[in-house]
Amino acid sequence: MQAIIASTSTIHGSSYLEYLLPSLETHFADVQDVLFIPFARLGGISHDEYTEKAKEGLKPCGKDVRGLHEFEDPIKAIASAEAIFVGGGNTFLLVKQLHELGLMNVLRTAIDAGASYLGTSAGSNICGLTMQTTNDMPIVYPPSFKTLGLFDFNINPHYMDTDSNSTHKGETREIRIKEFQNLNSVIVVGLREGSWLKVADAKITLEGGLPARIFEPGQPPYEIDSNAILNFN
Amino acid sequence: MQAIIASTSTIHGSSYLEYLLPSLETHFADVQDVLFIPFARLGGISHDEYTEKAKEGLKPCGKDVRGLHEFEDPIKAIASAEAIFVGGGNTFLLVKQLHELGLMNVLRTAIDAGASYLGTSAGSNICGLTMQTTNDMPIVYPPSFKTLGLFDFNINPHYMDTDSNSTHKGETREIRIKEFQNLNSVIVVGLREGSWLKVADAKITLEGGLPARIFEPGQPPYEIDSNAILNFN
Repeated sequence: MQAIIASTSTIHGSSYLEYLLPSLETHFADVQDVLFIPFARLGGISHDEYTEKAKEGLKPCGKDVRGLHEFEDPIKAIASAEAIFVGGGNTFLLVKQLHELGLMNVLRTAIDAGASYLGTSAGSNICGLTMQTTNDMPIVYPPSFKTLGLFDFNINPHYMDTDSNSTHKGETREIRIKEFQNLNSVIVVGLREGSWLKVADAKITLEGGLPARIFEPGQPPYEIDSNAILNFN
Repeated sequence: MQAIIASTSTIHGSSYLEYLLPSLETHFADVQDVLFIPFARLGGISHDEYTEKAKEGLKPCGKDVRGLHEFEDPIKAIASAEAIFVGGGNTFLLVKQLHELGLMNVLRTAIDAGASYLGTSAGSNICGLTMQTTNDMPIVYPPSFKTLGLFDFNINPHYMDTDSNSTHKGETREIRIKEFQNLNSVIVVGLREGSWLKVADAKITLEGGLPARIFEPGQPPYEIDSNAILNFN
């Protein structure tokens, strides 16, 4: 399994995918064609517009990008892809379509078989056991919250630290994750914007120069440093 | 129908329900017993702990508060309640239990029949057509996102304005609501913390001294002032 699982597609003051390009050069070194799955519809844009954005973003790598919606047979398109990029947007929308089109297992099988995977935000969220630690609004009702389960934990992308100066009374991210863990015994990796997980076969490394926040059920959360290997066994 | 539908139970620098007490004195003037529904489990606390908190909060009004979980027959308890308070916490958890216990319609019927309703946060979210404009994390999978539909719009509680100084790349609240409306032709009322809707029969008034942000599908969002009557027909 070869995957880059990023908290966000874009960091402040930088263009779409720009901060990931050096890593993507290596990650996608042996592939020419990248299959883009635009179902999360970043900011509500159309599948065509979103695919155009992905194309632009990956242009410096010199890859050919096609959107999954352009294929007559999406199952075949995923099964035969050498590289797959699932973009961000709304995780409920993404997961609903992957399930309804019967693509969740197909995607998992393709990644297991060696397709190089890139996920950003919602596309990273679906790499965990479930989408239950998404930050997104439930704008559609998916048939299940189960996702790819590339590893035995969940991702919280765009992880935000508690702002001790805030006067807002909505739940902090940390409280939300703890509420999830009251009911689900699942480890959660809070990935700050600018961080990504690099999965190389069974080895999962935190990259991007920032620490990540780890929530193990029933334990106080703790930080791991960039370049740490994630191993919860 | 008599309801107070509040963005939050608590505002900054004030204790639980404190800012609502003057309005609750009037709202609950003719009732002695308040049935509290603790299913959203604020901050993950137990039903007993949460009911204790509600009791404390309503103590200055001199009401008798009992938790729904204390009753053998929850359907009967709701149907015979003179006043019902649904507290905040996680909307997915609240909605899952209301549906699974067959209480959503029972609650609607009780409110229609004249039970005085108080909702805060998640308890306000469920007053709309669906819970799809919640800010909460999907920590459990409800059988449906449909809610009470006391009126023909949705609530976004704890509404937060876009912070133009933020460097965070996660979606703003406004973008999330627009993404919801790309796929659902439903008006959304963004209720800022400190605001509530006062429902008196067919009349819905914004109270609390703050403006609210109104999102009508396909139109730019706009503000309404405190004391405005909501009428989208």
